[in-house]
Amino acid sequence: MMVRTLIERKRNGGDIAPLEWRELMAQYGAGAVPDYQMAALAMAIYFRGLTREETGALTEAMLRSGDRLDLSHLDRPRVDKHSTGGVGDKTSLLLAPLISALGVAVPMMSGRGLGHTGGTLDKLESIPGFRTGLTLAEATRQIERLGCAMLGQTAEVAPADRRLYALRDATATVESIPLIAASIMSKKLAEGLTGLVLDVKVGSGAFMPELSKAQELARTMIALGADHGCPTVAVLTAMDRPLGRACGNALEVRESILGLRGEGPDDLMEVTFALGADMLRVAGVVQGVNAEADARTMMQQAIDNGTALTQLRRIIEAQSGNARVIDDMSLLPAAPVVREVKATEAGTIAEVAPRAIGHGIIAMGGGRTKVEDTVDPAVGYELLVAPGARVDAGDVLALVHARDKEGAARGEEALRGAIRYGEGPEALPLVVGRIG
Amino acid sequence: MMVRTLIERKRNGGDIAPLEWRELMAQYGAGAVPDYQMAALAMAIYFRGLTREETGALTEAMLRSGDRLDLSHLDRPRVDKHSTGGVGDKTSLLLAPLISALGVAVPMMSGRGLGHTGGTLDKLESIPGFRTGLTLAEATRQIERLGCAMLGQTAEVAPADRRLYALRDATATVESIPLIAASIMSKKLAEGLTGLVLDVKVGSGAFMPELSKAQELARTMIALGADHGCPTVAVLTAMDRPLGRACGNALEVRESILGLRGEGPDDLMEVTFALGADMLRVAGVVQGVNAEADARTMMQQAIDNGTALTQLRRIIEAQSGNARVIDDMSLLPAAPVVREVKATEAGTIAEVAPRAIGHGIIAMGGGRTKVEDTVDPAVGYELLVAPGARVDAGDVLALVHARDKEGAARGEEALRGAIRYGEGPEALPLVVGRIG
Repeated sequence: MMVRTLIERKRNGGDIAPLEWRELMAQYGAGAVPDYQMAALAMAIYFRGLTREETGALTEAMLRSGDRLDLSHLDRPRVDKHSTGGVGDKTSLLLAPLISALGVAVPMMSGRGLGHTGGTLDKLESIPGFRTGLTLAEATRQIERLGCAMLGQTAEVAPADRRLYALRDATATVESIPLIAASIMSKKLAEGLTGLVLDVKVGSGAFMPELSKAQELARTMIALGADHGCPTVAVLTAMDRPLGRACGNALEVRESILGLRGEGPDDLMEVTFALGADMLRVAGVVQGVNAEADARTMMQQAIDNGTALTQLRRIIEAQSGNARVIDDMSLLPAAPVVREVKATEAGTIAEVAPRAIGHGIIAMGGGRTKVEDTVDPAVGYELLVAPGARVDAGDVLALVHARDKEGAARGEEALRGAIRYGEGPEALPLVVGRIG
Repeated sequence: MMVRTLIERKRNGGDIAPLEWRELMAQYGAGAVPDYQMAALAMAIYFRGLTREETGALTEAMLRSGDRLDLSHLDRPRVDKHSTGGVGDKTSLLLAPLISALGVAVPMMSGRGLGHTGGTLDKLESIPGFRTGLTLAEATRQIERLGCAMLGQTAEVAPADRRLYALRDATATVESIPLIAASIMSKKLAEGLTGLVLDVKVGSGAFMPELSKAQELARTMIALGADHGCPTVAVLTAMDRPLGRACGNALEVRESILGLRGEGPDDLMEVTFALGADMLRVAGVVQGVNAEADARTMMQQAIDNGTALTQLRRIIEAQSGNARVIDDMSLLPAAPVVREVKATEAGTIAEVAPRAIGHGIIAMGGGRTKVEDTVDPAVGYELLVAPGARVDAGDVLALVHARDKEGAARGEEALRGAIRYGEGPEALPLVVGRIG
C-alpha cells in the first residue's frame, strides 16, 4: 500500500478511510510498514488530528491486529476501570477485589509506570512472587473461578498498539488526544467488557492537565466505547496533588491493604468509591435514583465484613503471590533508609506538586524514564501534609523511603521542590466532573 | 543525545541550537539516530519551519557530515548552476561546457530525475558509455585538466543529506522550504565554489509552483550561500510549460547538442543565456553596466566558433562516453516507435502542462517514481506546439517516442491530457525575476 500517500493526505488535513486504517495497522502490526513512516504519520496526526470516524477506525484496526478475551459465556457483567495515570493513584488495587467481590467480573489489564506516573503492574509486583504475566487463557480461567484477574498487556493483545505506543514515546507524539484515546480503548475493548469506567485525571500531575483537554479525551473515549457496544462513563478526578498519602510501589500496596481494611485515607477512599459506584452502575448491579447511595453501602459493607480483603487474598494466591502480606505488611519490600523531612518554617502548604513527587520517585530508582528500566519497589514517600495544611517549623512533612543515603538526599530535594508555601490556587474538588 | 527532547521542542515551536544540529546530523549520518526519530522531526519541521539560524546550522551540519571538493588551488573562479527541477530543463547540459569553455571552472554535481522532473545524470547516461559515478579525486583531476566535471552526489558528500533526502521522499516531508534549501545548499557548498547561480522554477510544473514560495526558497538559499562566503544569485524562470521542445533523456541530449551548434529552440537558449550571464557575472568574468551584454556576446561567440561544442566533446571523452554522438546523433538511443499526435480540432493552445508531460514520460518508462527505478533513455516527446499557438485539425501537436505501441498509447493519452485549448492564463515570462 502507498503509505506515503496516506501520510501526505493527513499532512494536508485530509482523512484516511476505515479500510485504509485497517490495512495500514494490520501491515504495521505485522512489521510490513516501517517505523519511520508511522512516525511521520503520528506527527502529522499530532498537528492535524483525527476525525471521530478515523479515531474509531484506528481503534478498531489496532483491536483487530491481535487477540482478545472472550468472556461472553460468563453469567456476570464484566467491567473494568482505567486511569489516564497519576501519582499515588492506587485505586485499581482497591477496586479490582472490591468490585469483583460484589459479583462483577473485573478483567483488569494494566500498564507499567512511565514518566512521573506509577503503574499498577509495578505495584502488584512489589508483592513477593506476584505474577502479572498471565496469558489470555490463564486470565480467562482465573476470571471464571474468581471473577478477577490483574494482568499486563500480553503480546497477543493489540500488537499494532504496542508497537505504536513505543514509537510515540520515542518520537514525541504521545500528547495527541485521538492517539491516546485509540491506544487506551483498543486495549480496553480487547477485554470483552460489558461496561467501562474511565478515571480521567485533571490538574498539573495529569498527562492532560487542562480540564478542556481532559474532557475532550473523555468524550473521545466514551464515543469509542459506544461505537463498540461497551457503555463507558468517565469520571474526571483531581491530580493537582498526589492521591492518598503513599507514593511508591510497595508503599501504595500497603495503603491499598489499609484501604480494604477500612483504614485508608479519606481522599483515596472517596475517589475509589466514586469510581466503584460507576462500575457497579454500568454493571447494572445498582440502578435508579438511589444507585449511588446503594453502591456506596455495598462497597462499605464489603470492606467492613472483610469480603473485599478476602478477595484480594484470593487474587494474590491465584497469581502466585505471597498473600501473607495482607496480615503481615513487613513482608513487603522495605527501604533501608527512612528519613523524616521537616518543615524549616511555619506557614500554609499551597501545593504538593505531583510531577515533582513522581520525579523524586524516579530519582530514587522507583520509577521509569524508559520502558526497559527496572524499578526499586521499596522506595517512595509517605506524605503527611496536603495542600491547605498549616505547619510549624519542625513539623514532619513526609517520610522519604530510600535505598541509601544518597537516594534519600535526592528524594528529600525533590520533595522540598514539590512543596510550595503560600496562597495557592484553590485545590480541585476530588471529583471534578462526570461524563456519561 | 536526547533526540526525543529535540523533536518535542521543535514540535512545540521552539528552536534547535547550532551545536545540537551538528551533533544530531553527525550521529544521523553515522547511523546512530534511527530513521523514525528523524522522520518525526522532519514532519515537525514541515509544520513549524526552521529559523534562518537553524537552517544555516542544519546545512552546515550536513555539509560537515561528509567530504567536499577542494579546488582552492585552481587559478580560476569556480561556479555551478543548480535548478530546482522541471520538465525539458536541459540547461545544465549546455551551461557546463559553455561556461567552462569561457575560463570558469564548473564542478557540477547533479541528481537523477524523480517524480515528474528529469535529472541531469539520467540525461548524460543516455550517451553511450558516459560515466557519472566519478569519485571526488577523479572529479578534481578532470576539473584541473578540463575545467569541468559532471558527476553524481558521491557517497562521500553530505551523507546525512543523502539519508535524509531518501527518508523525506518516503515520509511526505519533501515540501518544506528550509529542508529543501538545506539539502540543495549542503551539496552545492561541498563543491568548493566561488559563486553559485540558482534556477528557481515557478509555475505549475515546479515543485514550488507559487511565486511567493519560490521567492522564499530563493532567498533562503541565497542567505545560506552568503553565510558560507559563496555569492549566490537566483533566477526565477518559467515552468508553467516545458522548456524547449524535447522532453525525455536522449531527446534532451540531442536538443542540447543542437543548442551548442546554434540550432536550439529560442526559449531554451534564452533561459540558458540568462543563467549563463549570471554565472559569468558571479565568476567576475564580466562586470559593470555592460556585464549582461558582454556575457551574451561571449556565449554566442563560443557557440558560433565551436569552442562550446568542443568542450562538450572533451567532457564526454573524459568521462568514457562516445563523443561521436555529437556528429552522429543516430548513435544516441532511439525509440522503436515514433507516433505523430494530431490535433482533432482547430483552436488556440492555452496550456501544455509540464506535470502531465513528466508523468507521460514516466508512463512510457523514461522516468522514476522511486529512486531504485531504471529509466528507458530513448522515450519521450518532441513538442511541436507551445501555449499561444494556433492549430488546425490535423496539425501535428507532438511526436511521441516510445518503446512499443502500448507505450505510445500511454504517451499519447498523457500528451492529450497535458494540452488544453482555449483562453489560458497568460504564460509566465521566461525569466520571471532575479534575486541577487
